Amino acid sequence: MDQKTADVSFDSLLRIFTVPEGPDSTLTQIEAKLSQNLNHFLREHIVAEEKPLRDIEKDFSDPAIPEQPQFVSDHTQHLLDTLVSHSVHTSSPSFIGHMTSALPYFLMPLSKIMIALNQNLVKIETSKAFTPLERQVLGMLHRLIYSEKESFYSQWMHSANHSLGAFCSGGTIANITALWVARNNALKAEGDFSGVEKEGLFAAMMHHGYKGLAILVSERGHYSLKKAADVLGIGQKGLVAVKTDSNNRIVPEALKEKIVELKQQGIKPFAVVGVAGTTETGNIDPLRAIAEICAQEECHFHVDAAWGGATLMSNNHRHLLDGIELADSVTIDAHKQLYIPMGAGMVLFRSPEAMKSIEHHAQYILRKGSKDLGSHTLEGSRSGMAMLVYAAMHIISRPGYEMLIDQGIEKADYFANLIQQQADFELISQPELCLLTYRYVPKNVREALKLASPEQQDKIHQLLNELTKFIQKRQRETGRSFVSRTQLNPIQWALRDTIVFRVVLANPLTSKDVLTKVLEEQRQIATKVPSLINKLNEQCLAIQSAPQTTTSN
Amino acid sequence: MDQKTADVSFDSLLRIFTVPEGPDSTLTQIEAKLSQNLNHFLREHIVAEEKPLRDIEKDFSDPAIPEQPQFVSDHTQHLLDTLVSHSVHTSSPSFIGHMTSALPYFLMPLSKIMIALNQNLVKIETSKAFTPLERQVLGMLHRLIYSEKESFYSQWMHSANHSLGAFCSGGTIANITALWVARNNALKAEGDFSGVEKEGLFAAMMHHGYKGLAILVSERGHYSLKKAADVLGIGQKGLVAVKTDSNNRIVPEALKEKIVELKQQGIKPFAVVGVAGTTETGNIDPLRAIAEICAQEECHFHVDAAWGGATLMSNNHRHLLDGIELADSVTIDAHKQLYIPMGAGMVLFRSPEAMKSIEHHAQYILRKGSKDLGSHTLEGSRSGMAMLVYAAMHIISRPGYEMLIDQGIEKADYFANLIQQQADFELISQPELCLLTYRYVPKNVREALKLASPEQQDKIHQLLNELTKFIQKRQRETGRSFVSRTQLNPIQWALRDTIVFRVVLANPLTSKDVLTKVLEEQRQIATKVPSLINKLNEQCLAIQSAPQTTTSN
Repeated sequence: MDQKTADVSFDSLLRIFTVPEGPDSTLTQIEAKLSQNLNHFLREHIVAEEKPLRDIEKDFSDPAIPEQPQFVSDHTQHLLDTLVSHSVHTSSPSFIGHMTSALPYFLMPLSKIMIALNQNLVKIETSKAFTPLERQVLGMLHRLIYSEKESFYSQWMHSANHSLGAFCSGGTIANITALWVARNNALKAEGDFSGVEKEGLFAAMMHHGYKGLAILVSERGHYSLKKAADVLGIGQKGLVAVKTDSNNRIVPEALKEKIVELKQQGIKPFAVVGVAGTTETGNIDPLRAIAEICAQEECHFHVDAAWGGATLMSNNHRHLLDGIELADSVTIDAHKQLYIPMGAGMVLFRSPEAMKSIEHHAQYILRKGSKDLGSHTLEGSRSGMAMLVYAAMHIISRPGYEMLIDQGIEKADYFANLIQQQADFELISQPELCLLTYRYVPKNVREALKLASPEQQDKIHQLLNELTKFIQKRQRETGRSFVSRTQLNPIQWALRDTIVFRVVLANPLTSKDVLTKVLEEQRQIATKVPSLINKLNEQCLAIQSAPQTTTSN
Repeated sequence: MDQKTADVSFDSLLRIFTVPEGPDSTLTQIEAKLSQNLNHFLREHIVAEEKPLRDIEKDFSDPAIPEQPQFVSDHTQHLLDTLVSHSVHTSSPSFIGHMTSALPYFLMPLSKIMIALNQNLVKIETSKAFTPLERQVLGMLHRLIYSEKESFYSQWMHSANHSLGAFCSGGTIANITALWVARNNALKAEGDFSGVEKEGLFAAMMHHGYKGLAILVSERGHYSLKKAADVLGIGQKGLVAVKTDSNNRIVPEALKEKIVELKQQGIKPFAVVGVAGTTETGNIDPLRAIAEICAQEECHFHVDAAWGGATLMSNNHRHLLDGIELADSVTIDAHKQLYIPMGAGMVLFRSPEAMKSIEHHAQYILRKGSKDLGSHTLEGSRSGMAMLVYAAMHIISRPGYEMLIDQGIEKADYFANLIQQQADFELISQPELCLLTYRYVPKNVREALKLASPEQQDKIHQLLNELTKFIQKRQRETGRSFVSRTQLNPIQWALRDTIVFRVVLANPLTSKDVLTKVLEEQRQIATKVPSLINKLNEQCLAIQSAPQTTTSN
């Protein structure tokens, strides 16, 4: 049972700390239903048709903290009606638009245990065994990437004054941490200069005589790197975009030229970021080639493998990330392809000495020589999320993860083929991992395009962009399935700004049938915008009735 | 039941995504026991005597990701034996050493629901109703601090291009976010300079002709500010410590002088941090006086109320934070005195325009004009933690929180009196909120000190420091209770480095009896270090047998 009365007395207050919800309470019932069959529970409770955001906002518009306590049961019902019912069914097999997918069941009760223990990983005194556990998890990921010998890990994994990496709330903090370390190592103490961490960036630049700093990354780098460049005082202009090839991979020659160019301008390129699984197309940069350039040019080589890093679990596909073992640091998000709940980012450093440049101590906490994790993290107080990664590694195991990775890649291949077999869909980017992009192009339009002039192509292209946007939005609102959309500049569209559907196929419950239905639904929705279809038809007619001249494409 | 076999087949893999743990499984049983009586469960499972860290590490020493899957039940038992048994009982009524305390029961099932929903708050598409909910929570905290009118919140709370603050993984990220905003606003675009966010710190300094930047804070500021100064490129030397009075509060006159001094050196003091609840002594800076100086000197005024901010919930004590409503930004951690699980930091900004200086967008995510929360946060992907704050606000309500805050403050007063009544304990810092420090000083030593010369005091003082350290460590290892320790420089010890016990009394289950027993245990432990006690006795004898001369103190 919930609290008997919702009055405010110290006794009733103590009850919420001492008396658990009874077996018949609304909260217990809901927890049980959700634990028994999450997808069924969510299908029942999440409303199908999307409610407009401004209507949802009405339920969340009171800035006053309530003066009256609510019964737990009443509030739970309120959460069901206003929040759960209008949340996103991220674990649905037909939610294939983002990197969040289904979770293994065992992680839900384990999460509850983790939260009930309420450890604080900043310090041994508030986390005890969780500290060596987290260090082991970092060791496991480090070994997955760098495959160092056993002696390496027995020497460094639990060393008080070293760190193989940091557990973070997510990939953004992981990337910032990597670039923070790189910046501080590039501008460390020498002579009478006591290092950028103490004297700041201005003094560091004066000392070295640099006119600026630069981080280089492909045009397809994640937006978090822009944030990193801003936070770290380098400035977004210091994040230099390097040309990519037709497969969205950085062009090593272009990288080299850019570095030379920057140096000539007196700008220090202190880090290069290779992307292992771009967010928009899932492609992997040529990591080995970048590593060689970084070694020659004395740049820190960071790999943003937030999404794609889990591919290392598959012996069948880890070759795609060849060269990652040469990186100075690597970001991996366990809440993406390691199927852990939100909030499990990690950054790993090849050298156990790398993080010394950001080490910090404090008297009442993080004493020197202690093994407190907090002395090597950007964050302070942190939860015991590492426990979930640890458990999943043991229960799923490496071969289990291999299967999960492989099924995603195979499914993406299947879907790519399926799209290519359709007369009215066009594959935009081939999947390298389990991510691909495509769009809907009515059959007559595809025919007409073959004869169109560049100007005519432009017009059609604009209309197709609008159509793609419309279909994606409507499909999301209808609530049966969800694909995301982004904008690319594909070769086949002469680098025009092209709006595409984006699909990520990590959920092992996504069947081939689901994929067929997604295409059918998109085709159906297209028929519901006669205005756009009519305009496209008009264009087609104009092309086909025009005298045949030379056309491009 | 758990998985039948722990072989690796795709079918067995699918099972972990589709078949929940059965009612008789180890994991379900443990979850049930812990849900029925957390403290009982932890008392039973956490071993009393502390195991040395290096022994615990042996259980967490394998860097190889397992090649064989484990049964869920087997692994759960393994976690119980190696991890849970050697974790810290942070919710124990006698764990009074840190800011982590008991959690209300209803938050555990709610946490499970939150994790099962696995929303990603970076973007509406992956969080829907969670986005307006988080905006409301930020609005509630904003109103708690700034008490703006209803029209203010209806205008700004859900405005796409504005933000009242950011939900963060913790206070450190919140503080960094505040100072990032402050830095960027101090160095914003003007003329042909396009702002520090674009051009970086070096160009910004050249443009303004500054020789350095400074953040001012009292000597008692949190170590996270040093990290912030490092990350943001200001340098730790740019974090300028200002003198405190005998109550650990910043001296406004000294602050003013420091600002003038810095300006004369060509250094721009762009932010002042007031502390509302110092980590070591729980004192609150004179916020109103700081606000006035900041207004005169055109500095951003940030208040680090990570711990003490929840005091605003109490109408009886919120006057202690008088002036906080003048701050440009405020950090509050809900996982401290708002009794939320680890991972719920927040930063609030008085002006809805403040965060514009760190706004960022990306094509596939965070489109301009959308209400995606990710365009105003340092972090990217984030979980739906705000739901727990929202639920607690409704179920506990403001008057409930008031009681929780008040009981902590009253208990600290009670404990301070209790300590002062003992002949062999010395109160070092009076509690202003629910935090105090003290140490054990044997009765004969206290007597002798009255007659001691400064040199003799020094010697005794050193021995007392060692004794305090010993007692704190031993008490922790014995496992019945836990107080923390820190080092202060109290007036009554002529600013000598003084090691003290530190106690935080937030847990409503901590009884007066527990407090009495903590002192008794400390007294008992002291008798177990005859070497130190003997040395102290020798010093006492030497003092008492010496001819009486003038003594200080």
